[in-house]
This record gives sequence, structure tokens and C-alpha cells, in this order.
Amino acid sequence: MFRNQYDTDVTTWSPAGRLFQVEYAMEAVKQGAAAVGLRSTSHVVLATVNKAASDLSSHQRKVFKIDDHIGVAIAGLTADGRVLSRYLRNECINHAFVYESPLPVSRLVVRLADKAQVCTQRSWKRPFGVGLLVAGLDETGAHLYYNCPSGSYFEYQAFAIGSRSQAAKTFLERRFESFNTYSRDELIKDAIFAIKETLQGDKLTSSICTVAIVGQDEAFHMIDQKVIEEIINSMEIKEDAPADQAPLQEEDKGSEEAPMDI
Amino acid sequence: MFRNQYDTDVTTWSPAGRLFQVEYAMEAVKQGAAAVGLRSTSHVVLATVNKAASDLSSHQRKVFKIDDHIGVAIAGLTADGRVLSRYLRNECINHAFVYESPLPVSRLVVRLADKAQVCTQRSWKRPFGVGLLVAGLDETGAHLYYNCPSGSYFEYQAFAIGSRSQAAKTFLERRFESFNTYSRDELIKDAIFAIKETLQGDKLTSSICTVAIVGQDEAFHMIDQKVIEEIINSMEIKEDAPADQAPLQEEDKGSEEAPMDI
Amino acid sequence: MFRNQYDTDVTTWSPAGRLFQVEYAMEAVKQGAAAVGLRSTSHVVLATVNKAASDLSSHQRKVFKIDDHIGVAIAGLTADGRVLSRYLRNECINHAFVYESPLPVSRLVVRLADKAQVCTQRSWKRPFGVGLLVAGLDETGAHLYYNCPSGSYFEYQAFAIGSRSQAAKTFLERRFESFNTYSRDELIKDAIFAIKETLQGDKLTSSICTVAIVGQDEAFHMIDQKVIEEIINSMEIKEDAPADQAPLQEEDKGSEEAPMDI
Amino acid sequence: MFRNQYDTDVTTWSPAGRLFQVEYAMEAVKQGAAAVGLRSTSHVVLATVNKAASDLSSHQRKVFKIDDHIGVAIAGLTADGRVLSRYLRNECINHAFVYESPLPVSRLVVRLADKAQVCTQRSWKRPFGVGLLVAGLDETGAHLYYNCPSGSYFEYQAFAIGSRSQAAKTFLERRFESFNTYSRDELIKDAIFAIKETLQGDKLTSSICTVAIVGQDEAFHMIDQKVIEEIINSMEIKEDAPADQAPLQEEDKGSEEAPMDI
Amino acid sequence: MFRNQYDTDVTTWSPAGRLFQVEYAMEAVKQGAAAVGLRSTSHVVLATVNKAASDLSSHQRKVFKIDDHIGVAIAGLTADGRVLSRYLRNECINHAFVYESPLPVSRLVVRLADKAQVCTQRSWKRPFGVGLLVAGLDETGAHLYYNCPSGSYFEYQAFAIGSRSQAAKTFLERRFESFNTYSRDELIKDAIFAIKETLQGDKLTSSICTVAIVGQDEAFHMIDQKVIEEIINSMEIKEDAPADQAPLQEEDKGSEEAPMDI
Amino acid sequence: MFRNQYDTDVTTWSPAGRLFQVEYAMEAVKQGAAAVGLRSTSHVVLATVNKAASDLSSHQRKVFKIDDHIGVAIAGLTADGRVLSRYLRNECINHAFVYESPLPVSRLVVRLADKAQVCTQRSWKRPFGVGLLVAGLDETGAHLYYNCPSGSYFEYQAFAIGSRSQAAKTFLERRFESFNTYSRDELIKDAIFAIKETLQGDKLTSSICTVAIVGQDEAFHMIDQKVIEEIINSMEIKEDAPADQAPLQEEDKGSEEAPMDI
Amino acid sequence: MFRNQYDTDVTTWSPAGRLFQVEYAMEAVKQGAAAVGLRSTSHVVLATVNKAASDLSSHQRKVFKIDDHIGVAIAGLTADGRVLSRYLRNECINHAFVYESPLPVSRLVVRLADKAQVCTQRSWKRPFGVGLLVAGLDETGAHLYYNCPSGSYFEYQAFAIGSRSQAAKTFLERRFESFNTYSRDELIKDAIFAIKETLQGDKLTSSICTVAIVGQDEAFHMIDQKVIEEIINSMEIKEDAPADQAPLQEEDKGSEEAPMDI
Repeated sequence: MFRNQYDTDVTTWSPAGRLFQVEYAMEAVKQGAAAVGLRSTSHVVLATVNKAASDLSSHQRKVFKIDDHIGVAIAGLTADGRVLSRYLRNECINHAFVYESPLPVSRLVVRLADKAQVCTQRSWKRPFGVGLLVAGLDETGAHLYYNCPSGSYFEYQAFAIGSRSQAAKTFLERRFESFNTYSRDELIKDAIFAIKETLQGDKLTSSICTVAIVGQDEAFHMIDQKVIEEIINSMEIKEDAPADQAPLQEEDKGSEEAPMDI
Repeated sequence: MFRNQYDTDVTTWSPAGRLFQVEYAMEAVKQGAAAVGLRSTSHVVLATVNKAASDLSSHQRKVFKIDDHIGVAIAGLTADGRVLSRYLRNECINHAFVYESPLPVSRLVVRLADKAQVCTQRSWKRPFGVGLLVAGLDETGAHLYYNCPSGSYFEYQAFAIGSRSQAAKTFLERRFESFNTYSRDELIKDAIFAIKETLQGDKLTSSICTVAIVGQDEAFHMIDQKVIEEIINSMEIKEDAPADQAPLQEEDKGSEEAPMDI
Repeated sequence: MFRNQYDTDVTTWSPAGRLFQVEYAMEAVKQGAAAVGLRSTSHVVLATVNKAASDLSSHQRKVFKIDDHIGVAIAGLTADGRVLSRYLRNECINHAFVYESPLPVSRLVVRLADKAQVCTQRSWKRPFGVGLLVAGLDETGAHLYYNCPSGSYFEYQAFAIGSRSQAAKTFLERRFESFNTYSRDELIKDAIFAIKETLQGDKLTSSICTVAIVGQDEAFHMIDQKVIEEIINSMEIKEDAPADQAPLQEEDKGSEEAPMDI
Repeated sequence: MFRNQYDTDVTTWSPAGRLFQVEYAMEAVKQGAAAVGLRSTSHVVLATVNKAASDLSSHQRKVFKIDDHIGVAIAGLTADGRVLSRYLRNECINHAFVYESPLPVSRLVVRLADKAQVCTQRSWKRPFGVGLLVAGLDETGAHLYYNCPSGSYFEYQAFAIGSRSQAAKTFLERRFESFNTYSRDELIKDAIFAIKETLQGDKLTSSICTVAIVGQDEAFHMIDQKVIEEIINSMEIKEDAPADQAPLQEEDKGSEEAPMDI
Repeated sequence: MFRNQYDTDVTTWSPAGRLFQVEYAMEAVKQGAAAVGLRSTSHVVLATVNKAASDLSSHQRKVFKIDDHIGVAIAGLTADGRVLSRYLRNECINHAFVYESPLPVSRLVVRLADKAQVCTQRSWKRPFGVGLLVAGLDETGAHLYYNCPSGSYFEYQAFAIGSRSQAAKTFLERRFESFNTYSRDELIKDAIFAIKETLQGDKLTSSICTVAIVGQDEAFHMIDQKVIEEIINSMEIKEDAPADQAPLQEEDKGSEEAPMDI
Repeated sequence: MFRNQYDTDVTTWSPAGRLFQVEYAMEAVKQGAAAVGLRSTSHVVLATVNKAASDLSSHQRKVFKIDDHIGVAIAGLTADGRVLSRYLRNECINHAFVYESPLPVSRLVVRLADKAQVCTQRSWKRPFGVGLLVAGLDETGAHLYYNCPSGSYFEYQAFAIGSRSQAAKTFLERRFESFNTYSRDELIKDAIFAIKETLQGDKLTSSICTVAIVGQDEAFHMIDQKVIEEIINSMEIKEDAPADQAPLQEEDKGSEEAPMDI
Repeated sequence: MFRNQYDTDVTTWSPAGRLFQVEYAMEAVKQGAAAVGLRSTSHVVLATVNKAASDLSSHQRKVFKIDDHIGVAIAGLTADGRVLSRYLRNECINHAFVYESPLPVSRLVVRLADKAQVCTQRSWKRPFGVGLLVAGLDETGAHLYYNCPSGSYFEYQAFAIGSRSQAAKTFLERRFESFNTYSRDELIKDAIFAIKETLQGDKLTSSICTVAIVGQDEAFHMIDQKVIEEIINSMEIKEDAPADQAPLQEEDKGSEEAPMDI
């Protein structure tokens, strides 16, 4: 009722100086399946929840390789995320072709953010409805960025986006100070832990989770399902009781997923 | 009443981060005649219901050959489906001309999804109102994809879309684990069974159903009506009683077809 | 009342997945004067009702020759039909010029349908308000198609469109099984009978009806009014009583024609 | 009240399949000053009422010469009519330049109708608000067409458009069967009679009426005012009484002219 | 209240076949300061009221020279009038350059009207809000035209437009029959008389009135203020009493000028 | 309430023939800080009030040099004024480059007015919200023009625009008859007096006022603050009492400035 | 309620001559984190508050280097600010390339303002939602400008924008008269003091504040966090009590930040 004249057009400011359509697009990110990212000085790990729409289907990809040194995990409208990923790939290829060196992560992130910004300032477009965790490694080390629909981006030590991501963020905040010195395997393990937090009691299996890594001497790639399976198994032995309590601590309302993010 | 300001324009986000116009376009898929697809490791079978508008007319085609190794079945607006099929054909021809090799199925599916996504982000267009089951065979084996109006796509072992497709999905879920090892003929048979499920007691005849196959050493083609007739006849002998009960199990409300999908 | 926010813009989906503007355009076809088509294996006959707007005027043409082997009959907005006919003529001429062979009927029908589909997906256009019966003969034999404003098309053995076409459809359905073996003259006779059915008791004269034929060794042309007169006269002798009863059987409400289809 | 959502945009169909904006544009024709046309086998005569806006002004032209063999009379928005006349002149000139022969009347009429149709299918235009009587002579004889704002056209033996044209139409219908054999002078006389009918008792003088003719061996030209004066004078002697009664027979409500047609 | 859905967009027809936005634009002409024109066979005189906005300012020009043989007087939005005048000047210059002869007045008037018509048929423009009296002399003699915002034009012996122009029209109608034989000086005198009529009792001085003339052997030019002063002085001697009564005869309500016509 | 359908779109006429959006834009001029201009036969002086937004800031420039012989003072949206000033500068430079002579003031003013007019006739633009006093010297002498958002312009002996300009206008009207013979210094002095009038009792200091001059043998330039200071000081000695009374005479309500004109 | 028809479209003027959408965009600046700038004759210092969105993230950059001699600090939508910064960088690079000299600060500021102005006059854009403090050094000395969304700009001795900036402005106004003679270090110190004022009692640490400087012989660069830390520490010793009282003096309501400015 109160908002009705300022929140249907992306080029209309509200009297309080807000762009409601951009804020609404950021809601779409919160409704997507959760994605987490965390980094040490040498590696970045991305992980996503991949619930298949039915027994018959494979899950929809939420992690995309952009280049050997960069990958992204998305939450929100997967179609928008895929289109942006293709744009990122083209940027990397063009840069590599012209300069014969990989595109620095920070520059790629800015270009992505600029592309998102344009969609917040044209009346015949809409803001993208997807958030991207960009993991990359370049001469300045390992990086983890979050690009949101408003055209802003932030660098993170570790972050979680999407449905019920608050639990994962709480988990990550308790530990993030030691991430910089983590080994490759410790990073992966904590990424899976964080994903587990977002499930709120649902059983974590290797089939509903994708983990990818990029690091020194290690191009961006998905981690084998078997390796993840083993880690999950080892986790269950240690952490039986605490995991049961986690869902009791916080209850996220945004648990039903949007129809476009099956 | 509640939705009235956010659901008439495809570029308007709702406060909850949803694009209602895209969701409505997905409703159009549910109103089209049913289509099913299922695959083994070597073959993919597509089948559709083809009710003719009247005795005087032939039915409208719902299965299209795209290339020797790819075909699609559609549910929803047939005009939209036909336009997208033509686009797919052009993509295949161009790829074959340039690279002298068939276009991999997964890449075709992405291009189709990207084309659909564009229509969800321009104020002067509308999302396509059609879902496509894409069946194809390439160097990585047999594939079955579902492309929906939102610009998303999913890989499936077996899937059913369109009016009363839930019955077919239930049928397919009971059996899908053995599909990978099915022979060519078993696949066709189960496709016809699945179609039968969507008819909810209406008699299945070869004239109201189209079946197509693509497989190793077998280019995409429609299966002869006589062959289908024989299979249906053999089915009736075995399965008299159970088939009668099927419609009692579930009643789909979306049974009346939309006027544009005669 | 209920539809008020989804049915004024062709690019707006209703919550049930319908495009009301396209459906409304199809109503325009129902308001045009009736047109019928029927085919044997070697000939296709088109016939239309041509009520002149007044004694002073000739009637408006409803049948158009497209090429030697193709012609169309329209119902609905005649201006839209004329513009589409011109498009069809250009397509035929271009094909003949490039390939030195006549354009196959099925390919022409697809191009026409694609042109109609575009008008259902642009906010600054409107769907065409005309239905076309396309009669043609090519290497695959005689064909009769119906193209409707939604961008769909159907192949028919015989069909009737426009105002009070239901009576003609009922007549055609009673006989259609024998059409394939009809002689040229039998086809013409039944076309006139079908037109008579749509008049609901109004007297049929050669002046209010146009009949056209295309067939083997016979280019598409209008049949001479005198020939039609003779057929009508011979019909009246035989069928006096039954014809009087026909209008009693069914009463079509859409009897008043739209102002744009005088 | 009932029409309020379907009748303000030319690209919006009403639920009953009508384009109200096109129908409204046709109302503009009815509000213009009357124009009549009639033809024999060798001549076509056009006549219009030309009421000057005030004593100070000349009347606005309603009859335009297009080419030696073609002329038009308009009713409705004169500015729209003038713009269309210029278009017709260009078409004739271009055809004559390219083919060194006069443009056949029927082809000119189709081009005019196509131009009008375009304005009924673009959201940023409006239908033309003018009706044109096109009189012409070509190898196929004398022709009289009526082009209306919807993009339709009709061939007539005789016709009247504009304000209070019904009286003229009634007059013409009583006599039209003999027009084909009329002499040049008889045609002119009956055209003036028809114009007189539309005046409903107002005195007919040569100053408020324009008459033009095209015929064999006679290029399209306006007939001299003196000749018309003489004919009117001769008419008055014969027909005093009947003319007085005419206005009593029918009373046209659309008698006040629109401000744009002064 | 009644008009609310048809009168805000220039491309929307009302149900009665009217374009309200065009009619409203014509109201703007009525609100501008008055302009009069009158012609003999050899001369045309234009005159306008030029009330300065304040003591500090000069008045805004309302009479524009277009070419040696053509000039215009405007009423309504002066900015629109100035833009159209520049267009007219360009047309004259181009014609003179190409054909080495002056552009006939009637052709210039048609081009002006066509330019105005375009603005009545595009949704993103508005009709011009200015009326122009075009005075010119060419091989066919002296001409006076009135171009109005609808794209219509009329030839006049004498005419008055703008605020309180009715009094001037009444004056001109009493005398117009003798204008053709007027001398140059008589024309000027009557133009000043007509302007005086529009002032409704306000004192006429040479400073609030501009008079221009074009005639045989006399290029279009403004008449010197002193000459006008003398004529006014001579008038006052003769016509003292009658002038006082004029305002009593008719009271024009549109006396307050629009803000844009200061 | 009464205006609600005609005053939100610049291309919509009101039924009374007004363009409210243009009138509203003229309100913006009234809300800007005051500007005055006055001229003798050889010099033109412009003066503006420059209240700084805070102690920390310099004031925003309201006087712009266009060329050696032309300058402008603005009131209203300063951003719009700056953009128009840049346009004027380009016009002067281009003219000087092509013709090697300075652009006459009157021609520059017309181009400025034409640029403003375009913004009153396109639906996707808005009228400029700024008024410009244009001071210039060319072969025809010294000129002072006022260009307003409607695309109109007026030549003035002296004028004041902007907030509380009525007091300055009253002052100027009392004296304007002698301006033509004023010396350079007298002009400057009266400009400062006029500015003082708009302050309504606020103390006039050289820091809140800019004065610029153009004249024979004197290119357009700002007058040094010290010179202004001296003049103000000399004024205060003479005119103590009368200045106190001025604000009592008239109270302008539009005293609070718009946020965009800080 | 009162504003509802004039404040949703940037090209619509309110009856009082205001552009509400531009004013609303200026509200967005007030909601961003605070930024301050101050300058001596030889140096300019910029400082911003950088609250990180969470423990996990780095803060978002609010200070951008444009060229060696120019930098900006932003408040409001960071995405808009970043896009504008890129534009500024391009302008500097192009100028340097063409003229081989640095772009003067004042000219850069005008170009930035012009770019902002365009977005206030096109219906399909929106005003930028960001304010920029531009600090630069050129041949004319050190400069500090503020560019706001309306397209206006102001030169300042010192200024603060963004959330709770009033406290900083008050602080700066007490001291600004001595800034011109400040040393480099004194400027930095007062910038940090001003930032401290905007925190209203929150503890100032080097991690939540960025300080940058440009000066003679000193290219624009961020000041090291350690240096800032030392300054803050030294401040705390001296100013314990007064800092506590500051928040009591004034309470800014706009303390909650907008979602897009995380």
C-alpha cells in the first residue's frame, strides 16, 4: 500500500532516496539455493547446495568456471547468472588474447558490477536477479568477491548468500580469523560445514552439494563427488550431536524457493 | 488483488524478489498437451499427445527434428515452440558449416536458454510460453534436457511436461533407475506408457500420440504409427486392470487446454 | 472485470498462462464472413461468402491468388488479410526466382505463421485479426492449411472459419471421409453446400459466393459465376426440404459482422 | 463505461475481437462534409459539399487531382486526406516514370489501403481519419473505389460518404442500375442531385459544391462553376416540390461538423 | 469528467471520431494576441496586436518576413510560430536556389500544413499551438491563407485570429466585398480598424500594433510606426463615438492571455 | 485536483489550450536567485545574487561569459543553465570560425530559444527549468534579451528574473527611461541598486553579488569585487532610510529557494 | 498523497517548478556513509567512513583515484559512484593523451556535472544517486568540489556529505578560516576529527575510515592505515571529554543506511 507509486519502475526514486526495484531484485538472491565461499592466502573454495527438482533430474549448475584462475557460484535466478557467466568468460578470453596474461580478478569484478549497474538505470530493463560469489587467484593472491544486483561488490574473507545463508554466515564468522592460514583441505572441509548449516537438519549428502576450488598450482575445478562423500562421512562421526542442535538455534523463514530457481 | 502492481510487466520485480510474468509464462507450459522424454545410455525417446482439433484436421506437430542428432518435443504455445525450433536448426547448421562437426547438445541447450532469458529482461517483449524437451546424442552420450520459459534448463533421466504430466512423472519416477540399461524398444514402450498415464482413462491410440527417437546409429526420426499401434495393442493385453485405476489415483485440474494450443 | 489487468497488452501473460490479446484477435476471425476449404488428393477448393455492403458496391475480395499453385481465403479483418497475402506473394516470387521451382505449400505456411507469431511478442504491435485458409498443390500433393492469429497452423482435410462456420463444419464432418476420392466437380459442389449451411436460410445465389480451385493441371483460379449459378440451381431442385431445416438445427450467435469487415 | 480499457489504444483488441480505435476513426469520416461518386462505363464523377467556414474564406478543397486519369474526393480530416493525396500523386509519378504508362487504378487503391493498414497496427500512430472516393479510368474501364480508415477498400457503382450521406445513398440506390449507360451529362446531373439530398433543405448553389469528372478522352478536372450553376437552375424548375419533402423523410443526427473539418 | 480517456493523447480517437488534443491545440490559437489579414488583388496586409509584457520590454514579434514575396502573422505559442517560420524560410530559400524562381504561396502553405499534420499522428509529439496567417504574392496574384494546428489551411479574403478576434471578423465581414478593389492605403487603414476592434475600448496606439504589407512592386516589409501613427490620428478624428460603442456590442471571455504568450 | 490529467506530460494540451508542464518549468525560474540586467546604448550590465550554500562553500556561478561580446545571467536550475551556456559558447565559436566575425546577439538568442522549444514538444524530454538574461553588443548596438523555458524570448531595456524580482522590476520601471543615456558607471550602480531591492532588507555586500559588463571597447567580464564594494559603501551613505522601507512595500512569498538551486 | 502525480517521473515538473525525482535522488546521497573533504592552499584531504557490512568482508571503497592530481570521495549509491569515477578517469586519460598536460580540475568537474544533468532530462533514465567530493590540484592551486545528482557543483573550502554529515559540517565551519594556512598534517588531523563527529559516539578506529590526500609534490594516494591509527591514538589522549558531548548536541535521524549502500 504505502509504496505503490515508487516501487514498480527501476528508474523511479522513492522520496527517501531508495530504488525499490533494485532492493526487490536483491530479494531474489535471498530466495536462491545457498552458496558459500571462503579463502586462505593461497586457495579459494566455493560450495553450493544443489537440490535436484525431482528424482528424475540432475541438479541445475550453480558453479561456473570462468577461466583457469576464476570461477563463480551463484544464488538467485540461474538464467541471469548463466548469462552473466558467459559475459565474464568473454571478458577473460578477450583479455588473455590481447594481453597474453590472465585478467586480474578485481578488474573482472568491476566489469561485472558495471554491467549490473546499467540495468538499474534504464527504464526498459530490469536489475539482474542474481548474486555472484567470484573466486579467483591472480598476482595479488587469492580473492573472494560478492557481486550483488545493485552493481555493488565487496571483497570477503568468507561469505554465504542465498536461502538460509544466515546460519552459514554465523558459522563462518566464528572461524574466519584462522582461514588465512588454512590448508587446502581445511578450507574444503569448512565450506562443507557451512553448507551443512544452511540445510537446517536436512541430511547433507555429496549429491546435493557442489564444491569447487582454485589455488596456487591448481586451476579452478569442481571437487570430485567421492572426495566430498568421504569428508562428509568423516564429519558425521565427529559431529553428531551439535549438528542436530544447529537448526534449533535459528529458523529462517525464506525457506521456500522461488519457482524460477527450481 | 494482492499482486496487481507487480505482475503485469516482465521487467518489474515483486517485493519478494519474484518475476510474476515469468511464472505466468511457465503456466502456459502446463496448459499445453503433455510431452515426455526418457533416455538410456544410448538412446533418447520423446513422445507427445497429439489431439487433433477436430475430425477434419491433422494434429499440430509437437515434435521437431533439429538435426540428425537432436530433436525437441514442446508443450505450450506451439507458435513460440516452432519459432524456437527454427532458431535451433539454424544454430546447428551454422555450427556444422563452420566446424564440420555436430553441435554438442549441451551447447545448443545453453543457446536456447540464453535466447529465452533475453525475453525476460526487455520491457517490450514477453517470455516465451513454451517448454522444450531437447533430446540429443553427442560424443558425451545421450542427453535429455528441459528448457523452460525462465531461461533455465535442467538435464533429466526422464521427464514429463504439459497438461496432466504429474501422472507421467509419477510413473517415470517409479522406474527411472533402470532406464540407463533399457534397450531401444523398452524405452519406446515406457514412453508410450507414460503418455498413457497423462490421458487419464481416455483410450490411447496410435493416432493421438507421436513418438520419436534418437540413438547410436539412429538419426532422430519419428517412429512409424504402425509400430506404435502394435506396441499399444500388446500393452492392452497385459495391463487391462491397472490402467483403469490410474486415473483414480490423481486428478489434474489443468485439464482444459488453452485456446492457443488447439 | 476479472481480466482487467492482463488483457490489454499482447506482451502480458495472465496468471493462468494465457495471452488474452491473442485470444481476442482470434475472435475477430469468428466475426468475419465465412470461408470454407476442402481437398481431394488432387484438388483443393476454397469458397467464401461475399455479401456486398450495399446494392451500390461490389463485394470485398476474400479469396486471393498467391501463385499458380497456391491461393488463400480469409475471414476477419480484410485489410490484415490483404497485407499478409502480399507478403505471401513476395515469398513465392522470391523463391521461384532463386530456385526456379515453386515454393512448397508447407514452407509458405510456416513463414506466414512465423510472421503472425512476431506480432504476438512485441508490445508496439498487435496480433493480426485474420484467419487464412491456404490451398495449394505441390510435389507432395494437395494441401489445405489454416493459419490463425496466434501463429499456429493446422493441416485440414476440410475446414470452415468465420461467422456461423459451425454449421459448415458439421456438414463437412459428416462427409469428409470420402473427400479424398472426390472428383473436381464433387468438391466444388460440396464447397457450395458448405457455404449454403453458413447462410442459415438466407438464399444462396452465385453473387454472394466466390469459389476458387487449384488442382493438378489446373492453376489456382476463381470459378466462373455462371458455373456456380448452374450448380446452385441444380442443388435447389434436389434439396429443397432439407436445406430449410438446416438453420433450425443450430443457431449461431455471432451473426452480426464487425464494422471493419463490411 | 463498458469499453474503457479496450478503446484507447489502436493495438488493443476488445474481447469481442474488435479494434475500437479503428472504428472511432471511421466515425471521423461520417462527420466530414458529404462526398459522392458515381460512374458509367466511360466516366466517373465526384462531387463534394464545400461549405466555406465564413463569408471571408474560400472553402477548403475536398477534391484532389492525382493524375490525368485519377482523382479523389475526401470526407473527414482534410489534413489527413491531403497527406494521403500527396502520397497517391507520388505513386502515380513514380509508376509513370518507371513503366511509361499510367498506374492502374486498382493498384493505386491497394497501395493506399496498405498505407492505411499500417496505421492500425503500430502503437505510436493513429488510424487516418479520412475516407477517400477514388475515381479513375484505365485500360479496364472506369472505376470508383472507397478507401476507409481501416485499410479496407470497396469498388462501387456509386457511393456517398460523410455527414448526412444516407440521403444521397438512398437516392443513388433508386437509380444505380441505369448509371452504366448514362451519358457524361446525366452523370454530372445525378451527382448534383445526390449532393442536394445531403443538404436536407439547404439551398444548393454552385458555390457550395465542387464537381469533378474523369472519362474517356477527358482528363480528371473540376467542372466549371458556371456549368454547375446552369444545371442547378434547370433542376430547380423541374423539381421544386419533391426537394422540399426530402428533409422530412430522414433526419441525420451527425449534422454538426467536427472542428477540424471547418 | 466525460472526456477523460480520449483527450490526453494525440493518437487517440474519441468514440465520436474526434481528436481532442488537436482541438485543444486550436484553443491555444484563440488565447494568443489577435492578428488580422486582408487582401486586395494586388496587396496583402497583415496586422497584429503587440502588447509588451512590461514597460521595460519591447513586444514580442508576431509578424515574420519569410521571403521577399511572403510573410506571416501568428497567434498562439510564439515559440512554435518562430520555429515554423524558420522552416518556411528554409523552404523558400531552397526553392529559390534550385528553381531560380520564388516559391508559389500555395505550395508553401501546403508544406506548412503537412508539417503540422505529422504532429497530429505521432504519440511522442504534440500538435503545434499556433495559427499562421500567410500573406504572399505570386504569379497568380495576392493570397491570404490561414494555417491551423490541425494541418488544415484555408484561403481567405480577410481573416482575424487570436484573442477577441470575433469583433475584427465582424468588422471585416461588413466590408470584405470591396477589398478586392481597395488601394494599398485603404487596405492598411482597414487592417488598423480591424485591430482596433479587437482591443475592445483600449486605446489604439502605434506602439501596440504592427502592420506589414506585401504587394506588386513592394517586397514584404513592416510599415513604419510613424505612418501608422498618422493613420491612427486621422481615424480618431472621424470615428470618435462609434469606437466607444464597439466594446459594448460583444464581450469576449478569452481576454486573459496564456502565460506562454506574454 | 482539477488539472490532474493534463499537467504531467509536456506533450499534452489542456482543454483550454495550455501546456501546463511548460508553465510549471517557468515556475522554476521564479524560484532561482534573482538576476537583473539593464542597458544603455553602449553598455549592458548583468547582476546576480550569489548566496553561498554555507560558510564553507563558494557561491555557485550564475553569470557566464559566452564570447567577448556576449554573456548571460541565469535564474532557476543552474545545471540546465550551464548546459545551455555551453551550447551558446559552441554556437559563437562555430560562427566565428566560419564567418570570421562575431555572431550577432539576436541570432544567438533565436538559436537558444529554438533549443528550448524542442524540449516542449518531445514526450521523452522536459522543458529546461532556467531563464537566461542575455547581454550582448554587436553592430546594431547593445542588447538585453530574456529567454524563458517556453522557447520565447523578449528584448528588454532592463529586466529582473528570479526570486523576489518584482521589487527590482518596480525599481527599474521607475528609472528605465533614462538608461539609454546612462554612463557605464551609472548602469553598474543601478544594477547593484536593483539587486539590493531583491534582498528585502538583507544586507547587500560585495560577496553575495556578481556584476558583469559588456560594452563598446570593453569585452564581457565580471567586475572586480572591490569596485562593487566601493559602490555599495557609497550607496549606504546616501540611501540609508529608503532602503529600510523597501521590504515593507512588498513581500514576496516565493522566498524559499528550491533544493536544486542551493 | 499530495505529490502523487508529479514525483514519479524525472521529466515531470511539479506545479511549483520542482523536479521531485531529482530531489529524491539527492536523498540517496544523505543516506550514504559520510564523506568529508578539506583543503589548504597546497593540499586537499578526503576522508570517508567505511563500515564493513560484516566481520567477514572488507569495506566497500568510497575513495577513488582518478588521476595523479585528482581523486574523489563518494556518498550514496556506490555503483553509480564507481561508474562515474570510471568516466572521470577516461576524461583525464584522453585529455592527457591529446594535450600532454593534466586536465584542470574545474573542467573535469563541469564534465561530470553535465553527465549528471543529462540524466535529469531523459524519461528513460534516472538521476544518479550519488554525491562526489572531487579533490584536485592544478595550476590554479588546490580545489575541492562537490557534485550533486542534480547536475550542480560547488567549490568548497571544506565540506561533508552523507549520513550524519551535519555534525562534521558544524565542526568544519568552526575552523574553516584557518584551513588555507594549514600544514599537510593538520589537514589530515582535522579530516579525521570531522569523520569522528559523524560517528556520534561510535569509536573511531583506523579500520573504519579511509583518508586520502593530494598536494604539491604529492600525487593523490590513500594514507596508510598505521599513520591514521597513530593520529587517532594521539587524538584520544587530548580530546576525551569533548568527543563524548558531541553526539548530544545534535541527533541525526538518517542513521540507518540504505540497503544498496551496505
